[in-house]
Amino acid sequence: MSINNNFTKTVMSVGEMASGAKLTVPVYSFKAEQSEGPSVYIQANMHGAEVQGNAVIFQLLELLKRCDINSNITLVPYANPVACNHKNGEYTLGRFDPITGVNWNRMYHFDQGVIEPFAQENIDESDEAIEAKFKQLMLDEIEQKLDHNIYGLTTGQRIAYQLQRLAHQADLVLDLHTGPISSKHLYCPEYAQASASYFDIPHTILIPNIFDGAMDEATFCPWWQLQQAYQNLGRPFTMGQGLFNKESFTVELGSQEQIDLDVAHQDALGILSYLKYKGVVADTEFTPQQMTRYACYLKDYKALYSPMGGMIDFLAPFGEPLTAGQPLARILRMDNYGDGDPLHYISLDDDVIPILHFASASVNQGTELYKVFTNYFKL
Amino acid sequence: MSINNNFTKTVMSVGEMASGAKLTVPVYSFKAEQSEGPSVYIQANMHGAEVQGNAVIFQLLELLKRCDINSNITLVPYANPVACNHKNGEYTLGRFDPITGVNWNRMYHFDQGVIEPFAQENIDESDEAIEAKFKQLMLDEIEQKLDHNIYGLTTGQRIAYQLQRLAHQADLVLDLHTGPISSKHLYCPEYAQASASYFDIPHTILIPNIFDGAMDEATFCPWWQLQQAYQNLGRPFTMGQGLFNKESFTVELGSQEQIDLDVAHQDALGILSYLKYKGVVADTEFTPQQMTRYACYLKDYKALYSPMGGMIDFLAPFGEPLTAGQPLARILRMDNYGDGDPLHYISLDDDVIPILHFASASVNQGTELYKVFTNYFKL
Amino acid sequence: MSINNNFTKTVMSVGEMASGAKLTVPVYSFKAEQSEGPSVYIQANMHGAEVQGNAVIFQLLELLKRCDINSNITLVPYANPVACNHKNGEYTLGRFDPITGVNWNRMYHFDQGVIEPFAQENIDESDEAIEAKFKQLMLDEIEQKLDHNIYGLTTGQRIAYQLQRLAHQADLVLDLHTGPISSKHLYCPEYAQASASYFDIPHTILIPNIFDGAMDEATFCPWWQLQQAYQNLGRPFTMGQGLFNKESFTVELGSQEQIDLDVAHQDALGILSYLKYKGVVADTEFTPQQMTRYACYLKDYKALYSPMGGMIDFLAPFGEPLTAGQPLARILRMDNYGDGDPLHYISLDDDVIPILHFASASVNQGTELYKVFTNYFKL
Amino acid sequence: MSINNNFTKTVMSVGEMASGAKLTVPVYSFKAEQSEGPSVYIQANMHGAEVQGNAVIFQLLELLKRCDINSNITLVPYANPVACNHKNGEYTLGRFDPITGVNWNRMYHFDQGVIEPFAQENIDESDEAIEAKFKQLMLDEIEQKLDHNIYGLTTGQRIAYQLQRLAHQADLVLDLHTGPISSKHLYCPEYAQASASYFDIPHTILIPNIFDGAMDEATFCPWWQLQQAYQNLGRPFTMGQGLFNKESFTVELGSQEQIDLDVAHQDALGILSYLKYKGVVADTEFTPQQMTRYACYLKDYKALYSPMGGMIDFLAPFGEPLTAGQPLARILRMDNYGDGDPLHYISLDDDVIPILHFASASVNQGTELYKVFTNYFKL
Repeated sequence: MSINNNFTKTVMSVGEMASGAKLTVPVYSFKAEQSEGPSVYIQANMHGAEVQGNAVIFQLLELLKRCDINSNITLVPYANPVACNHKNGEYTLGRFDPITGVNWNRMYHFDQGVIEPFAQENIDESDEAIEAKFKQLMLDEIEQKLDHNIYGLTTGQRIAYQLQRLAHQADLVLDLHTGPISSKHLYCPEYAQASASYFDIPHTILIPNIFDGAMDEATFCPWWQLQQAYQNLGRPFTMGQGLFNKESFTVELGSQEQIDLDVAHQDALGILSYLKYKGVVADTEFTPQQMTRYACYLKDYKALYSPMGGMIDFLAPFGEPLTAGQPLARILRMDNYGDGDPLHYISLDDDVIPILHFASASVNQGTELYKVFTNYFKL
Repeated sequence: MSINNNFTKTVMSVGEMASGAKLTVPVYSFKAEQSEGPSVYIQANMHGAEVQGNAVIFQLLELLKRCDINSNITLVPYANPVACNHKNGEYTLGRFDPITGVNWNRMYHFDQGVIEPFAQENIDESDEAIEAKFKQLMLDEIEQKLDHNIYGLTTGQRIAYQLQRLAHQADLVLDLHTGPISSKHLYCPEYAQASASYFDIPHTILIPNIFDGAMDEATFCPWWQLQQAYQNLGRPFTMGQGLFNKESFTVELGSQEQIDLDVAHQDALGILSYLKYKGVVADTEFTPQQMTRYACYLKDYKALYSPMGGMIDFLAPFGEPLTAGQPLARILRMDNYGDGDPLHYISLDDDVIPILHFASASVNQGTELYKVFTNYFKL
Repeated sequence: MSINNNFTKTVMSVGEMASGAKLTVPVYSFKAEQSEGPSVYIQANMHGAEVQGNAVIFQLLELLKRCDINSNITLVPYANPVACNHKNGEYTLGRFDPITGVNWNRMYHFDQGVIEPFAQENIDESDEAIEAKFKQLMLDEIEQKLDHNIYGLTTGQRIAYQLQRLAHQADLVLDLHTGPISSKHLYCPEYAQASASYFDIPHTILIPNIFDGAMDEATFCPWWQLQQAYQNLGRPFTMGQGLFNKESFTVELGSQEQIDLDVAHQDALGILSYLKYKGVVADTEFTPQQMTRYACYLKDYKALYSPMGGMIDFLAPFGEPLTAGQPLARILRMDNYGDGDPLHYISLDDDVIPILHFASASVNQGTELYKVFTNYFKL
Repeated sequence: MSINNNFTKTVMSVGEMASGAKLTVPVYSFKAEQSEGPSVYIQANMHGAEVQGNAVIFQLLELLKRCDINSNITLVPYANPVACNHKNGEYTLGRFDPITGVNWNRMYHFDQGVIEPFAQENIDESDEAIEAKFKQLMLDEIEQKLDHNIYGLTTGQRIAYQLQRLAHQADLVLDLHTGPISSKHLYCPEYAQASASYFDIPHTILIPNIFDGAMDEATFCPWWQLQQAYQNLGRPFTMGQGLFNKESFTVELGSQEQIDLDVAHQDALGILSYLKYKGVVADTEFTPQQMTRYACYLKDYKALYSPMGGMIDFLAPFGEPLTAGQPLARILRMDNYGDGDPLHYISLDDDVIPILHFASASVNQGTELYKVFTNYFKL
């Protein structure tokens, strides 16, 4: 029997430009006949230059049409067309609103003040009621922001809140990003560490229960803080189980400014491996690849800033431990040739795993050169 | 007898570009023979497009050479040459690092964790010792950041910390900014409200004891939080007096992208009026202008975001109360002409005073249109 | 009897962005019952930041609805939505494609090689046939470019050619622009000098028969070169009369980055004064204002480049003759204060009329400071 | 006997920024004891993002110190620090002045009007006198532009003319550039085709005697046009020989935004192979690599513009012939998924060799996708 799942496509209006041009986002939804597994929300391209996720959603749609799906799945490519369409020179201005400088992935909403009152008011409710009421509370908060704000919303909030409204309806959230020039890596909440091994991604950053404005945090922090509030009130739950079977990941698919549909097919299989593990799809062929998986805690994921202006010859390969003292990069300073030091080598006193580096050879003093794992360990 | 104060000029290196070009900042210092009044630090042009402060420092230098000065005064124009020299099209990219999007005036340092231990350890010290030791602590913190950071500093931190090192040595700090298209206004800590009437500036925003990364906060919050820590420990001091005679202001001189040396002369006189009031200069001719001065609290200083994309005909003049319901602006939407509404009027349900508006007629949905005082009052 | 002309509105698709978003341009057309006068094409906002023309088209539409019109009139606001929607910081990146740097108003098409063969082949045709066939040739050339180009068109060519297709169908073409910070001025072909006095614009630049890629040149140069080709072949015509009643102007409405609907009403009246003069509208109330009108030839319209980096206090007012030696501007160089020359005055050895200046106080060495008329005369 | 050539280093001031910061360019010069071969000028990084040439100059300096040199050699890295230091987001704004949009490599000077008068006046001069006088004429022209221009120079002209002043003193000129994402290729004047096989570069574009503002043209066009003028006057010379032993190349070293010092060493060896062939260095170990070298004429070097907006999966590898009809790229249009065509394949009706492609996957309709050789042939 061949499966041919239907999806629905809707179009969400997320912004208007000066000429009146309306920017829209397509939303693809699969509805499971009997929704037994956790529901899923996947988006891509919130940062303008991070486009590979769109290709991954293409391949996921192609694959999901033939899958045995147990729950509802929503997929949103081109999540931020304002950013996606913004060129500065040949490149796409990636990470922030060109008018304000605010990072597009720091504008989601979470008011921590609602957690404790909710737990207190609903201390004796059933698990089902807690889940339903808290999900509704999250949605109501977003609706309130979107529709009842006299002084208005910023461009980025309007986009973020509309995406968040979709994400809050799901149990599992995947936000597809990329680094600048980068290996694949995964941001994973600490409680979901076990899930990290089901993605085909060799590097995982474990993040704590702190909301800093990003989509993953905006969707897992409310539940995690609620679980802790109940714990404090003497009603213990376990994250990742039952009504708290909520997980959110930022999936970093490699480098920005490029798409590759063949690599995207592999990326999609890795995501389906995770979805199979969570019971979203039943197809047994989706299994994680065997690989060494490294992890570190967010506090140990360090950015290294350039000690001088210059041009960087990036030397250290991604994903492999680099012994303390080995060079990460060398900085060319031709202005020093003949009467100074034209080559400056950069190394660290720690063993590190280089994860990503800056997108250009040319840096100012203080430009972020590398991000590296320190105090890393195997998953 | 004619006064002819000498100043010293030094040059501070604040950044290196990819070509190795070094960016420097000139630092002008007057030393009083007997330093009896509070010392002063004045800087300009931390945001690239906000250049009028450089002209004000020019006029202050011209005037201070002839003043009867009681204390040390340091003046720093071109505080951020990286930003000042960065063009995007014809305009100067004003507010943020073009690589990271981080606001240049949100990178100063203050670790609130040092306050309470300091107060406890120095509960019985003399006023003089408290002042000297706390000032040294602030400086040590900055030195530690500047010189002992294995992973380096961002471009903006390196600039900000060097400026902050100068500012922490002063009692009174003025950070000269401008708005986009703007009236003159003043950010003033709540405790220093009395001082606001000595500037020739008709609008004052009173700000609380919360550190958000700006220069004014970075220099007054430590002292204000220290004063509160002592209060909690039972040793009350008054802000603005004695060892707590510390004040910091962000002075918004009008609109960005322009200088006017004649207006700068007036601006300089207004600053000297404040310095006379604080005892920095003895010259009696510096007195505040008579004007109606309005103020509101920071929480009541509202940004209004555009409800649609379009082109704005800004209507409301700055600085005058605007009755609820009166139009602030109208939005032209030619794409709607003939089959929709080509003109959309914007008004608010509150009485407001418009303080500044966006620098361009062309806005996206969600672009900040105006900033206005609500719940304002007369000083 | 009250007139209520109907116009039709169509929408022209001019570009697609990376997300697939389509950018469109609204086209408004009045059809005269008996088309007796010259037909008209008016567009605005080809340069992104030059938005006042949109407001002028708004006011023209409001006025034309009540006019007694003799010929067809087409109006196109938002001619270039790619540019209009492109922000760099707070400002709109005005003049060029952000990817390639090519000036949006240098991409129109004119192949001068077609002129002489056409004149030779049609030396004995009737005036009517010459006009009809040459108009068709111009349109065919554009169609060929738009639809039969294997290697494709640049973003700007696709926009320009579609606008040009509309413009070639008209006899009179007005391209509404603005300067950076600017007085009102007019680019007028030398042969149409008499028409310049019917606009309410005090400064006119008379331009020769040289095609440099702009809309005005792209629509008058073909006819002017054709007229000269016939002249060389011994069949003289006069420009501005009969079949050569073709005129094109670039109308510079003042400063960029702003709209003012009240000023736009005045601007619209000035345009109607010209259209009345040309017989497009019959309403007698549209007459030119009395004013001193200055002109110079394009070769005498000079750009002045900054001799140094610095911050400019622009001193010379627009539109008034400035005697040789009088200062145009002074340049502040605070880095020279104390040990150099902090103020540098700029003047010229010619009498000039300042027409526009740079949009920002901050300039590099070599940035265009002013554009001025030299060798000017009264019209 | 080991050679240890000395070079001199001077610093040339090429620009000032708004803060007064001076931008300088280092100039390295080797003087041959007996200058018997043609003199050489090599520069790099005129376009901001094209930085690999700086690394090549580093390696050339390292190698030339040990070479047996016969003539003077001047090397200029960081030729354009204004561009090199200009970031837009993470990337360096490469090709044009951010204020004006003018391509930095289209601002060199050549007034063709001087050629014919010079040839007529010097028809009977000796070869040596012709060479010396014409070289001096070229230098005088540049001096005139640099030092006697009342209305000033643009930022780019000031840089270009200073570099050109150095280049006109040499016989052989190499301007080191890169493409966006690119194979190595060479712009070579048609008359110097034989020299192209001495570079280790597999693709050569043969360019005609037309000046379009670039450095290579600005240095070979004057001599080539002079040679043609003499030919017309009946005194034939051969380009590439005797006094007309002048050659200029734009050397495209691969992709922008990256340096690799090891690759730069190989690039330097390829340049030394050419210099050995021309007699600049005597060291016999510098010989060209064996490789298939393709060429086409400039008119056959085609840019392909995107027929739609979308995200490009670039498929065709560089440097290999691609049969007509084979796909160059596919364009992802997720907005069409489900109700349109989400993948669009691009191919051409000609056999081509892809040489470079756009730097980002995200393109507008009309963005340049690829540049390809058509009608190519083997050298």
